[in-house]
Amino acid sequence: MGYPDSFEGFMVESQKDWTNFKKQDFKPKPFEDNDIDIKIECCGVCGSDVHSINGGWGEVPLPLCVGHEVIGKAVKVGSKVSTVKVGDRVGVGAQIQSCMECKQCKSDNENYCPKQVDTYGAPYPDGTIAQGGYASHIRAHEYFTFPIPDSIPSIEAAPMMCAGLTVYSPLVRAGVGPGKKVAIVGIGGLGHFAIMFANALGAEVTAISHSPNKKEDALKLGAKHFVCSRDKDWAQPLAFEFDYVLNSADMGHKMNMKDYISILNVGAELHHVGLPDGPFPELMAQDFASNGSKMGTSHIGCRTEALAMLKLAADKNLKPMIETVEISEDGCKKVVQGVHDNAVRYRYTLTNYDKAFGKGE
Amino acid sequence: MGYPDSFEGFMVESQKDWTNFKKQDFKPKPFEDNDIDIKIECCGVCGSDVHSINGGWGEVPLPLCVGHEVIGKAVKVGSKVSTVKVGDRVGVGAQIQSCMECKQCKSDNENYCPKQVDTYGAPYPDGTIAQGGYASHIRAHEYFTFPIPDSIPSIEAAPMMCAGLTVYSPLVRAGVGPGKKVAIVGIGGLGHFAIMFANALGAEVTAISHSPNKKEDALKLGAKHFVCSRDKDWAQPLAFEFDYVLNSADMGHKMNMKDYISILNVGAELHHVGLPDGPFPELMAQDFASNGSKMGTSHIGCRTEALAMLKLAADKNLKPMIETVEISEDGCKKVVQGVHDNAVRYRYTLTNYDKAFGKGE
Repeated sequence: MGYPDSFEGFMVESQKDWTNFKKQDFKPKPFEDNDIDIKIECCGVCGSDVHSINGGWGEVPLPLCVGHEVIGKAVKVGSKVSTVKVGDRVGVGAQIQSCMECKQCKSDNENYCPKQVDTYGAPYPDGTIAQGGYASHIRAHEYFTFPIPDSIPSIEAAPMMCAGLTVYSPLVRAGVGPGKKVAIVGIGGLGHFAIMFANALGAEVTAISHSPNKKEDALKLGAKHFVCSRDKDWAQPLAFEFDYVLNSADMGHKMNMKDYISILNVGAELHHVGLPDGPFPELMAQDFASNGSKMGTSHIGCRTEALAMLKLAADKNLKPMIETVEISEDGCKKVVQGVHDNAVRYRYTLTNYDKAFGKGE
Repeated sequence: MGYPDSFEGFMVESQKDWTNFKKQDFKPKPFEDNDIDIKIECCGVCGSDVHSINGGWGEVPLPLCVGHEVIGKAVKVGSKVSTVKVGDRVGVGAQIQSCMECKQCKSDNENYCPKQVDTYGAPYPDGTIAQGGYASHIRAHEYFTFPIPDSIPSIEAAPMMCAGLTVYSPLVRAGVGPGKKVAIVGIGGLGHFAIMFANALGAEVTAISHSPNKKEDALKLGAKHFVCSRDKDWAQPLAFEFDYVLNSADMGHKMNMKDYISILNVGAELHHVGLPDGPFPELMAQDFASNGSKMGTSHIGCRTEALAMLKLAADKNLKPMIETVEISEDGCKKVVQGVHDNAVRYRYTLTNYDKAFGKGE
């Protein structure tokens, strides 16, 4: 067996042994008229990959092939595909299907479709479990397959597919742009994109981090100011300062939420894009009353935002900070352990797929 | 002693004996050039009055005269007052002072000034404790004193000063108007104003209540639909339905928050204006992810909103549902007990002040 009958991927067989990847075959969903088969070139490593395989977000179907920051080349396109042709370089993010018919799907909110299918670990309507990008190929509906601008190297485009889009979407939906003061909390895979994008959109960016040694990177990425949240009373001089605070750390359950609420301007939002394993600390309605603020979350972004993000990144020549690791059983182990231990600056991209899976289709 | 050296009010002396009001004298703050003395004609009874005197929101300075929905006649105006003259009918709400100099005060957000003084129970900069409207007079800065349109009866204008403004401000800040679907949760003092205002602003209003017997009133007030939240699975058919959900009940700590989050359209807000005594039920960031929603609070409204609300109420001839009670030691006991027991439909206004305090200035 092999492509096109089966794909090959590095898969985890047990959430108790989540750093143990085994290369094996799996069956993709049946090919449909709007589908594209992509021979994968590289894949970013997302915190979701770790939360999924180690059980932090609950059970998953096993064996599981994670990875939803996929870049590769289209090797087969369905008869109804109009946006991609064979040979095009394309990307796939964290969502691979939606109903295309509900109110959300019809209003550029397909990322909130109740029938959406996640790129890995989720059942297609026919029962096939979607498998991700630590693999030779991926089969994706064209609506969830994004052409990559020529000027963006694949290893840099990869982490934009989830990390990039996850912060770009809420930033633009909140109207972040010239004249706005924005704080980005946490400088990691998501946060480092958020600093770049908020700055590229024209806002005045403050990076807030526990790690004083990330200051230099934050300024290089486009932050105008850096605040260390380990400093005593760091929030006090920032009361009412920010029109938007984006928390990219998946540590919301351990943060002193009142500090982060206090730095919001009147009516502004504390927006969480990192989804922690545990609940928020205890909150009262009163905690939001001193500035009439709000708190919310979002879930990745829609296709039009993905395309706009890629255009912005190409136009402004935005350069994420990437560490590459060759894909292999050891390579997979290294990257998920590194993400778990918060050791990566700021995103791993798995590369050298031809070596692991061969050069052929 | 007596006016102008002292005012007379019905005051609570102990949070353990919070329905026991005693008529007694108190000293107002020193009169300043921007102040207005108001001989009170009537005063609405707010949930805050009860939360303050019974200790639900913590300790208060005692003895305390509550009441922050005050309507009366200006009997003295300071030399710098330009907006009110002696004899004018005016109202005072829940805020009686702010710094007038900070970013918030300069942007129609004086209700979020960190130096704001509440209408009762809060210290003025000179140490005088502000006392409220269960009293013969109130002394207020002109910025927090609102002229009342002739067409609105005093007993109806009174509850607009806090209950009305507390819901009007978030509704207009959220852009509630034609084409928007809005749900108002809880039909009480605040909620019944919210239904009227959201409808008057042009939105399609759904009233959500635990009490099926409030349906008729809700429709009369302007709701197009009524949903009983005691019905099993009431939220399911409403998924993604509302552009804004305003929760006016001060029971947020006992609500099934996930139901109320689920009825929000993508990116919409669940907004709490009732401040409960306890914290919210446990919440995870994930709870807001399926529709990218948010949750927030606000604190009364600003002067420009108060004036716009009064104009809307006059232009549209909005009629709140009011029960009047004569002010007296017994009358005060009756109204705070009634609010505590949720027995009022939908707001008490204390009246007949001349009988309690005399007709003179």
